[in-house]
Amino acid sequence: MNAESIRKLFLQVRSGKLSPDEAVNRLRHLPFEDLGFAKLDHHRALRAGMPEVVFGQRKTPAQLAQIFSRLTQRGGNILATHASPEQFAAVKKKVRNAQYREMARAIVLQRDSTKYGKGMIAVVSAGTSDIAVAEEAVVTAELMGNQVERLYDVGVAGIHRLLANRGTLTGARVVIVCAGMEGALPSVVGGLIGVPVIAVPTSVGYGAAFEGVAALLGMMNSCASNVSVVNIDNGFGAGYVASLINRL
Amino acid sequence: MNAESIRKLFLQVRSGKLSPDEAVNRLRHLPFEDLGFAKLDHHRALRAGMPEVVFGQRKTPAQLAQIFSRLTQRGGNILATHASPEQFAAVKKKVRNAQYREMARAIVLQRDSTKYGKGMIAVVSAGTSDIAVAEEAVVTAELMGNQVERLYDVGVAGIHRLLANRGTLTGARVVIVCAGMEGALPSVVGGLIGVPVIAVPTSVGYGAAFEGVAALLGMMNSCASNVSVVNIDNGFGAGYVASLINRL
Amino acid sequence: MNAESIRKLFLQVRSGKLSPDEAVNRLRHLPFEDLGFAKLDHHRALRAGMPEVVFGQRKTPAQLAQIFSRLTQRGGNILATHASPEQFAAVKKKVRNAQYREMARAIVLQRDSTKYGKGMIAVVSAGTSDIAVAEEAVVTAELMGNQVERLYDVGVAGIHRLLANRGTLTGARVVIVCAGMEGALPSVVGGLIGVPVIAVPTSVGYGAAFEGVAALLGMMNSCASNVSVVNIDNGFGAGYVASLINRL
Amino acid sequence: MNAESIRKLFLQVRSGKLSPDEAVNRLRHLPFEDLGFAKLDHHRALRAGMPEVVFGQRKTPAQLAQIFSRLTQRGGNILATHASPEQFAAVKKKVRNAQYREMARAIVLQRDSTKYGKGMIAVVSAGTSDIAVAEEAVVTAELMGNQVERLYDVGVAGIHRLLANRGTLTGARVVIVCAGMEGALPSVVGGLIGVPVIAVPTSVGYGAAFEGVAALLGMMNSCASNVSVVNIDNGFGAGYVASLINRL
Amino acid sequence: MNAESIRKLFLQVRSGKLSPDEAVNRLRHLPFEDLGFAKLDHHRALRAGMPEVVFGQRKTPAQLAQIFSRLTQRGGNILATHASPEQFAAVKKKVRNAQYREMARAIVLQRDSTKYGKGMIAVVSAGTSDIAVAEEAVVTAELMGNQVERLYDVGVAGIHRLLANRGTLTGARVVIVCAGMEGALPSVVGGLIGVPVIAVPTSVGYGAAFEGVAALLGMMNSCASNVSVVNIDNGFGAGYVASLINRL
Amino acid sequence: MNAESIRKLFLQVRSGKLSPDEAVNRLRHLPFEDLGFAKLDHHRALRAGMPEVVFGQRKTPAQLAQIFSRLTQRGGNILATHASPEQFAAVKKKVRNAQYREMARAIVLQRDSTKYGKGMIAVVSAGTSDIAVAEEAVVTAELMGNQVERLYDVGVAGIHRLLANRGTLTGARVVIVCAGMEGALPSVVGGLIGVPVIAVPTSVGYGAAFEGVAALLGMMNSCASNVSVVNIDNGFGAGYVASLINRL
Amino acid sequence: MNAESIRKLFLQVRSGKLSPDEAVNRLRHLPFEDLGFAKLDHHRALRAGMPEVVFGQRKTPAQLAQIFSRLTQRGGNILATHASPEQFAAVKKKVRNAQYREMARAIVLQRDSTKYGKGMIAVVSAGTSDIAVAEEAVVTAELMGNQVERLYDVGVAGIHRLLANRGTLTGARVVIVCAGMEGALPSVVGGLIGVPVIAVPTSVGYGAAFEGVAALLGMMNSCASNVSVVNIDNGFGAGYVASLINRL
Amino acid sequence: MNAESIRKLFLQVRSGKLSPDEAVNRLRHLPFEDLGFAKLDHHRALRAGMPEVVFGQRKTPAQLAQIFSRLTQRGGNILATHASPEQFAAVKKKVRNAQYREMARAIVLQRDSTKYGKGMIAVVSAGTSDIAVAEEAVVTAELMGNQVERLYDVGVAGIHRLLANRGTLTGARVVIVCAGMEGALPSVVGGLIGVPVIAVPTSVGYGAAFEGVAALLGMMNSCASNVSVVNIDNGFGAGYVASLINRL
Repeated sequence: MNAESIRKLFLQVRSGKLSPDEAVNRLRHLPFEDLGFAKLDHHRALRAGMPEVVFGQRKTPAQLAQIFSRLTQRGGNILATHASPEQFAAVKKKVRNAQYREMARAIVLQRDSTKYGKGMIAVVSAGTSDIAVAEEAVVTAELMGNQVERLYDVGVAGIHRLLANRGTLTGARVVIVCAGMEGALPSVVGGLIGVPVIAVPTSVGYGAAFEGVAALLGMMNSCASNVSVVNIDNGFGAGYVASLINRL
Repeated sequence: MNAESIRKLFLQVRSGKLSPDEAVNRLRHLPFEDLGFAKLDHHRALRAGMPEVVFGQRKTPAQLAQIFSRLTQRGGNILATHASPEQFAAVKKKVRNAQYREMARAIVLQRDSTKYGKGMIAVVSAGTSDIAVAEEAVVTAELMGNQVERLYDVGVAGIHRLLANRGTLTGARVVIVCAGMEGALPSVVGGLIGVPVIAVPTSVGYGAAFEGVAALLGMMNSCASNVSVVNIDNGFGAGYVASLINRL
Repeated sequence: MNAESIRKLFLQVRSGKLSPDEAVNRLRHLPFEDLGFAKLDHHRALRAGMPEVVFGQRKTPAQLAQIFSRLTQRGGNILATHASPEQFAAVKKKVRNAQYREMARAIVLQRDSTKYGKGMIAVVSAGTSDIAVAEEAVVTAELMGNQVERLYDVGVAGIHRLLANRGTLTGARVVIVCAGMEGALPSVVGGLIGVPVIAVPTSVGYGAAFEGVAALLGMMNSCASNVSVVNIDNGFGAGYVASLINRL
Repeated sequence: MNAESIRKLFLQVRSGKLSPDEAVNRLRHLPFEDLGFAKLDHHRALRAGMPEVVFGQRKTPAQLAQIFSRLTQRGGNILATHASPEQFAAVKKKVRNAQYREMARAIVLQRDSTKYGKGMIAVVSAGTSDIAVAEEAVVTAELMGNQVERLYDVGVAGIHRLLANRGTLTGARVVIVCAGMEGALPSVVGGLIGVPVIAVPTSVGYGAAFEGVAALLGMMNSCASNVSVVNIDNGFGAGYVASLINRL
Repeated sequence: MNAESIRKLFLQVRSGKLSPDEAVNRLRHLPFEDLGFAKLDHHRALRAGMPEVVFGQRKTPAQLAQIFSRLTQRGGNILATHASPEQFAAVKKKVRNAQYREMARAIVLQRDSTKYGKGMIAVVSAGTSDIAVAEEAVVTAELMGNQVERLYDVGVAGIHRLLANRGTLTGARVVIVCAGMEGALPSVVGGLIGVPVIAVPTSVGYGAAFEGVAALLGMMNSCASNVSVVNIDNGFGAGYVASLINRL
Repeated sequence: MNAESIRKLFLQVRSGKLSPDEAVNRLRHLPFEDLGFAKLDHHRALRAGMPEVVFGQRKTPAQLAQIFSRLTQRGGNILATHASPEQFAAVKKKVRNAQYREMARAIVLQRDSTKYGKGMIAVVSAGTSDIAVAEEAVVTAELMGNQVERLYDVGVAGIHRLLANRGTLTGARVVIVCAGMEGALPSVVGGLIGVPVIAVPTSVGYGAAFEGVAALLGMMNSCASNVSVVNIDNGFGAGYVASLINRL
Repeated sequence: MNAESIRKLFLQVRSGKLSPDEAVNRLRHLPFEDLGFAKLDHHRALRAGMPEVVFGQRKTPAQLAQIFSRLTQRGGNILATHASPEQFAAVKKKVRNAQYREMARAIVLQRDSTKYGKGMIAVVSAGTSDIAVAEEAVVTAELMGNQVERLYDVGVAGIHRLLANRGTLTGARVVIVCAGMEGALPSVVGGLIGVPVIAVPTSVGYGAAFEGVAALLGMMNSCASNVSVVNIDNGFGAGYVASLINRL
Repeated sequence: MNAESIRKLFLQVRSGKLSPDEAVNRLRHLPFEDLGFAKLDHHRALRAGMPEVVFGQRKTPAQLAQIFSRLTQRGGNILATHASPEQFAAVKKKVRNAQYREMARAIVLQRDSTKYGKGMIAVVSAGTSDIAVAEEAVVTAELMGNQVERLYDVGVAGIHRLLANRGTLTGARVVIVCAGMEGALPSVVGGLIGVPVIAVPTSVGYGAAFEGVAALLGMMNSCASNVSVVNIDNGFGAGYVASLINRL
């Protein structure tokens, strides 16, 4: 809970600036702010270095710009995922410093660049088509205050490329692995290192890849014990979980 | 077609030993022999070095012994797959030289040990639990006249074990890879070598392995282009396809 | 890699006790010990406090006892998962100090009780039927040197029970949540805390639970961003991942 | 059956206004009116306060307008679901008082505002994306004569928001819960109250949400015993069932 | 939120009895334990006529007998579902008045026979094989204080049998319909009546019935709007939901 | 609708014998009992040569014997499908002339051997393992008064065996084709002939055969236009449909 | 086998006109080309009243027009299914008498209106959305020379509408039933009549209808024994099978 | 393992040039970079006649043109699969000799026309809709230096067309079979010949074809032992595997 805001409330009550009844009423209205179609939870934003996150998909540029702009009134970083260039254009008009991370399809406003993560997070992708998902993980981890290193296009059918770069892996405190098709990379990476691996199945692949299901099943059944899995194409979730681990 | 048998028929007709009508009648009864519950195709057995194959499952020991025994009347090797020790006991009584390959659950009678295959077939397994399927492939390939080398317990979570033994892989003319769980091994193996890889998903695994479906999907989506796939647990099919390739 | 063993090899070579050729040969045989049916990777065991792990299922009591006994020759803890009372009886004869954790179906030999984990791991279960899986996670985390606290039978249909115990949750550095049926608990737990949640779908449930698939899908789609998932009923994997995180 | 209409028929026969043969003929043509492509069942409309319902999807604006207009000739409310703004424009030209409920994508003509329902129906949604489905349930329940209260954006990952508003829940006689992703909300709501919960899985979600299947399975496996489920995105069905219950 | 408790807190702060910091701390620990939640569970137990329910499956006879016996210490009815004759024998020794409802596989102790339900609940089954599930619904509804009428073996392939008995249907306040195979019966029943229908797919059927999945899908897609669905074979859930509705 | 009955009603009303209210009431109770429905079931039993059918599975020997015996009181043939030898023993004691068709797992009492079918029905099976299902179709068709010819073990991998026997196919008025594994045989048979083909997927096969699903999908997608499909292993259904067609 | 051809061969060998080796060689080349197969296709075209059928989908208007036009060079009817208005426009230019059946999306040229079918085929649809599929069945059956009667919008949720029209059903020699959603109609229809029912699942429905899969499963599991099933939306196949049956 | 490198290490230790600690350290960094792996990729490029392959899908024309152009700097053939006419236009501007194989949707630059394959590869397709996939296999095999023969439109419902052309099949060293719908053709082809068959399921079909899944399952369950399978629509993979086999 947002101790500071609540403490202020009590101080105002003690100093007589606020009646208890009014205070109860404010407390009731504190937690959720009303933007009309979505209640945003401020508590979340108060956690040190945690960015405000908006899911861009299915929102009009105007809607997204309004939400994004509103969020800037508090401090901290802001991240809009699954955002289109059109949405960015609308945001940009209201929030001059906002930037578009094209490959990740993310709009970011970075105002806090403290390093909250204790070590480095490696983000690994199997093929070039998995990079969009990997980049979403990268942006998320960066906005949450982590040093991130990329290791892309190191799929299992060319295992030497992965092995030649295992220095990056062994230097990481957490590793995110994005892979489509058979989803085999997390198992191989997991076997090479001793730190947690967050696996992200991607919807890359054809025919019996079934939009990421084959990769998801592959990862669920990983023979490496240090692998856990997030949803298909969920780069944000992987970046988020990895960031939490890296803060520990 | 069994040219020799038919040629004899014509010779008998020419020599007058057989009337044309009788010959037509015999021809009609030639192709399929009647064992009561299964018509066995003799044509198949006439291909040089091809073993007679019986599928043991759901047959009583007596039924299997009768079929197996009958097959010995012609030359060549005989293979009964999915065979139990009880079935073997029944076969052994009728066919003294029959042997039981316990891990493969196969009964074999090897009378022809010609090497029909031109090179070596490597049979690789990911884990110890995949060995039963791998052994069925081994037995099949051996009975079809191939030199076989095993490379077991080299799953992708300990990639160095596979790499330490890649000499076996590079010496092979065809490679069979058996793997359950995520079914990732064929991709890795396929990336290391330039010869055809026959992948066999096994029903090994738990939870979301779904009796081999996860491995099957993984293999169908292999990012290595030299991989083709046979049915779940179908060690026989893999050994058969690999043997055909090795004869070319 | 097992630096000490290799260093000894080099020392023996320098002192002339071993010829280089012999040393190469020994090195080749160092990594994998041969137990006949499974190559055990010693490297793994050398990581501080990491237990040796054997998967009990589909092994005869004699086989498991032999492997377990062999593993005792090195130091450290030993864990056999999916082990039956019969298997334990066989192990017990060879390894007097081995203990059976009945609910977890695990055989353990704990010789190292150093606390390698920096904080506490909370293991949460939705219903009483999920406890077997939860206990496997507990045993695994304990053998890997973690303080563990249980929070059982706090499913989402009685949300107040969970809330009344959220002190345990907020005191944890990592949380494992085991749930079958709709698999909703990880989302609720994830929303209450700010640390990583490892979700384990269990095969508990009837009808459209489909042996854990409903729970797995529920967890993959968790609306809480700090949740990642391991395979159905994979208490060991959850305990292992949580332990790695807790060591960071 | 429509007793009144039939009674009139008999009266006309008794009074000699109608011959028995003519009456039989009329009776035959009574039940179904012919609009060319759809037979509408008048019996249904005669139930007190039950609206006429048209499914808008895959109908041209002209077709929908014709049906809607025809239905106005009888009394009572009219509801067209899955209706587009274009369809509304066409309806509006023929039926001046028709209104468009944009979020619910419904065209309504409300002429009867009797409260047939005995209590209040609460309509709950997990996220902002579930609101379209929730609103369809709201419109349906309102047109069927119920008092409805909304409780939106109270998903399980922020359980305090739900708890802070449980007054609405405990005041309801029936509760409708719309949720996508893991579909966990009905279980939590069901555990908080003692009245029937109608769960509506929505197709909201990504990756392994499978267009609402994950939510559907989650709801089918609800650990709360007072939950029953309607089809994915079927807000109309939920509103209809809840209304029937509220009339009891 | 519990405004009164919080108001007291503010009053204590204003009066100086509590420092703001202490107040923040108390607030943090207040929310659930003291805000009425602990009472919620109590409230549940106090609901008039609600039976105690035990799920018998996977419990030993001794375990079930112990639980059942302990539950008798409070008043009210007791229901053990999925219970075997062996479990009943064990229960019977401890609880003399317990009875076994063989077809429903349920152990019951009925001490309260008040009629809490306002009308009659009809329980309909499509085939004779669905009766076990139907009987579980019957027992549940009876123990919860309802008048129940059975209408069995009225599947859609002999529609006249259903129609000949529609008096039972029209006399019901809620209807439960159990059907396997294609699960079509709820649609037909739903079309004949104007009250809520609770559909229960059963795992009866062969081949492509897929253990109740075909029936489940059929019911989810019912073209009758008054149908909602519970889990496969979940007779208890249907009886429970129907009872709640019948109390309204 | 039954115009005559209704006309009588109107006449009675006109003549004053019946009041309109009473007439409405009678009409309400008229529709089905008196409108020919009761006769429908009778009509069914009267259909010449239709056997009484009992589904044996999940019935005790005593139950089956009792039902079977009771059915003998009417004339005509009796067929019990999915019947075990134990069930037959019990039936045999009560019905001396009953016979057991072992391969079909059917108990039959044939008292009417009239040939109701106009032509011959060919029953084809792909492999020896499909014969049980094929035999059920044979028994059903024979008891319904058809001449049946078998064509077994003519799977598509040995297409010449099928072609060598196509005389049987071209002589048939309807063809039943039973096949497991890939379920390809109906397409091939369908392409060879111009009469209806009833395809029966069987649960024969391994791995990705999924208990008949692969065969079912294969048959649903048959590229031959004269193929329709019944449920997996449903030899009875195929025999029944084929018999109806053969009577036309 | 073609005994006569083979007999000639033997006669030639006996008479010395042919050497055995040459005979063997000829036999090898004999089987199919000379054994009646070439004639089989011809035979097909000669079957009285069978239309030429073209599948329109994925063909350009020009391609379809060219094929359609070429087919007119032989006599008989022509049917193009899945054809768009654009394709019809192109066909119309080349084939003046071609007609477009809009609801069925079919282009037809009917030059032979002989009634080849012996009775009437009833085509039944559950809802208005199933009519497109039903009309494809109607067109197919008509072009194949059958009298067809339609019975539309008689779904199971309003069973009285079906019953009121059962005269049409009982007058049919074969019945085609098209239904989406739960696919229950074929079971009900099947129970009312004694002739073969061809069931066509349609892709009509929402959510868990899964593009016709729910209806398909429902029909496969029909509790009426006279039902067989064709592929989803396959109105053509149903019309074709029904026509073959009606010619018998 | 690379014995020579390691042997040198030991020699250096024995000669005192290297301390044991330094040696351990070097060994740790040795394994992959220096043990021949870097050369592996080079080795790949050097394999005689292997084309460079680019996957065209999801690349802009400019991107594809740039990659294609760069690849021309090395010798050998170049193949871009899944390429659109727009992409070809862009490539053509940079690489004058590039050609577009329209049916295969492939851009090729053939500079090496050596025949590396020892025999002929037959590419078979079931229907005209499978030709796109078949042509991709043809182009791939041709660019890899094989003689290819096509055998199109020989589906199993017209088996005589396949049989009439079996000369092509029996002349092949490897056979590729592309089929959608029920995927039955590989089984029939496999039964006619004794060489390996590579089966390619295509996404051709409607309704329950499920975008190639029905064909995939059919092929996995092929009753012909010489069949292995690649992914749905993966003509490239089939051509690649067949080419590798044909080089052996």
